[in-house]
Amino acid sequence: MTAVDPLAASCPLPLAETERVLLGHGSGGQLSAELIGDVLVPALGSAAPAGALEDAAVVPIDGVDVVLSTDAYVVSPLFFPGGDIGALAVHGTVNDLAMRAALPVALAVAYVVEEGFPLADLRRVAASVGAAARAAGVPVVTGDTKVVGRGAADGLYVVTTGVGQRLAGAAPSATGAAPGDAVLLSGPIGSHGTTILSVREGLGFDADICSDTQPLHRLVAAMVDAGGDAVHALRDPTRGGIASALNEIAVTSGVGIEIDEQALPVPAPVQAACEILGLDPAHVANEGCLVAFVAAHRADAVLAAMRSRPEGRAAVNIGTVRDTEPGRVVVRTSVGSRRILDMLVGEQLPRIC
Amino acid sequence: MTAVDPLAASCPLPLAETERVLLGHGSGGQLSAELIGDVLVPALGSAAPAGALEDAAVVPIDGVDVVLSTDAYVVSPLFFPGGDIGALAVHGTVNDLAMRAALPVALAVAYVVEEGFPLADLRRVAASVGAAARAAGVPVVTGDTKVVGRGAADGLYVVTTGVGQRLAGAAPSATGAAPGDAVLLSGPIGSHGTTILSVREGLGFDADICSDTQPLHRLVAAMVDAGGDAVHALRDPTRGGIASALNEIAVTSGVGIEIDEQALPVPAPVQAACEILGLDPAHVANEGCLVAFVAAHRADAVLAAMRSRPEGRAAVNIGTVRDTEPGRVVVRTSVGSRRILDMLVGEQLPRIC
Repeated sequence: MTAVDPLAASCPLPLAETERVLLGHGSGGQLSAELIGDVLVPALGSAAPAGALEDAAVVPIDGVDVVLSTDAYVVSPLFFPGGDIGALAVHGTVNDLAMRAALPVALAVAYVVEEGFPLADLRRVAASVGAAARAAGVPVVTGDTKVVGRGAADGLYVVTTGVGQRLAGAAPSATGAAPGDAVLLSGPIGSHGTTILSVREGLGFDADICSDTQPLHRLVAAMVDAGGDAVHALRDPTRGGIASALNEIAVTSGVGIEIDEQALPVPAPVQAACEILGLDPAHVANEGCLVAFVAAHRADAVLAAMRSRPEGRAAVNIGTVRDTEPGRVVVRTSVGSRRILDMLVGEQLPRIC
Repeated sequence: MTAVDPLAASCPLPLAETERVLLGHGSGGQLSAELIGDVLVPALGSAAPAGALEDAAVVPIDGVDVVLSTDAYVVSPLFFPGGDIGALAVHGTVNDLAMRAALPVALAVAYVVEEGFPLADLRRVAASVGAAARAAGVPVVTGDTKVVGRGAADGLYVVTTGVGQRLAGAAPSATGAAPGDAVLLSGPIGSHGTTILSVREGLGFDADICSDTQPLHRLVAAMVDAGGDAVHALRDPTRGGIASALNEIAVTSGVGIEIDEQALPVPAPVQAACEILGLDPAHVANEGCLVAFVAAHRADAVLAAMRSRPEGRAAVNIGTVRDTEPGRVVVRTSVGSRRILDMLVGEQLPRIC
């Protein structure tokens, strides 16, 4: 007889048995990873990406390393404290390029609009795309707009794609984290996800918090300037939160990661909201911070460079990369015990970005 | 007193008065042009694209001209004779790059999926993306997947973005058509739109016709090889059909275009379907042909090069660019009269691509 795992019954079914796409497949957590790894990438055959899954791909064109990233935005509501779907779409794509140490050179924006959507709202979103792009210093060079009938979309979806140019001196990759690296976090976590949930559900926390959505490419430029090729890996902890980001790097780089729970900066209103909602702040989406894996000998210099920028003024060292327990993220708690920090399995907060 | 235009009452209201997005704003015709020109581009402010609206933008990165294009696909049904949303998405983006004489180097694919969508269909679409990309010789290097709740999308939308590298020797642009140019069409028109409509409405024409969806970059390479910089402008007549493509070039290049109605190749089943449905084949979408504006002295050589390729074996010379009536497209009919060929104004066939 086989021992029965009491947790197994609450786990989602494997892909082959669900037969249908679940909300959790868009969570950025384990189900997302399965959908991508077991369905979408294998279906491409030899047209699939070579190597590890990164926030952005490096494409050599005529001897120049062009960086490419695409993101679909389906956030609900479209407008929220701290931003809207337009700003979020620009920041998210700028940030995915930045995670490969690339500065944005051009953006493409596609809209899928539901028939009957107010033109004033579309104008407002497009203006926000423009303002965010100008603030990031990147032009929108091309786009596409499709209209679907009433009921065939929930208002508006935005898909942004960016091309970027790599900064000289660093080539961070999801495969690059190495034992001994310091794990640096650029700022507090959990604001974006709890803000969206609060607005959507009318919970009222959004009086105290707002989305952290912001572009991070200038922060990355300062980090590369200070750390050069000691900046081994970068990831922005969006869907699935910092727990998913750390687990992805642990798996892709084949290393263990140990985090100090007390060092994780969680704003008090975020902590309060998460306690009431039963959420772990480590699983909540962020749109304006990054986690960096930096060789120990440059960690202090990179941390100082981060703190010199407004986006990184609250940057902290949250842990260390280990050569033990590869693929696993462990948290040292305040009482000295150790627990495993898992990826989010199913869906916690749909349509967060 | 002002004379009353009897047609005015049937025209759509100007944007400011509708206040809401209409299906016609996605038609690829006049309302689309107004939405883009009056709302989306101005809202970007100084982040807006410089110059004319092209199928793809040219982005200089470190001295290399990188070509970028993005397209959202919302076709209904997802699977149809001759293709599906996956193949269509790859071909459409490859073709938009080709209209700037660029070969595709890498694709990014984003999916917006409705909760409950059958995994088998998602696998089938992803496999079709892979097969089309392999056939076009371009890898899919990155992507994104979002899941929205039931009722928040109609099954599946696909957004593809491509980066390409320009062929040496030609720089076709929507501004490039010049008086005296021959107007060359690579193949018969109307198959894609009538196929989609037939399948969607259960009309049965699809027993005789199928979508013409196919990649055109190798055809363009042969044309550039034969014509070099005499290839002034290229456009693939997708949404809005060849009428919209010709009008866009006439306006953007500031020229008149005269087309010989008898030279326009319309397959008999397409003609029959259009007559029954009350459609003008010139307004029906295509996904596998292009119209080229080529200097007269190289027109025969380029036409011969087109006919040497399977995608262009039925290529024909359909007309001439004039220095009179700039911005206007005129058709010479079989009885010798002349009529204006307008852009589609509102919506004829929603969700055709």
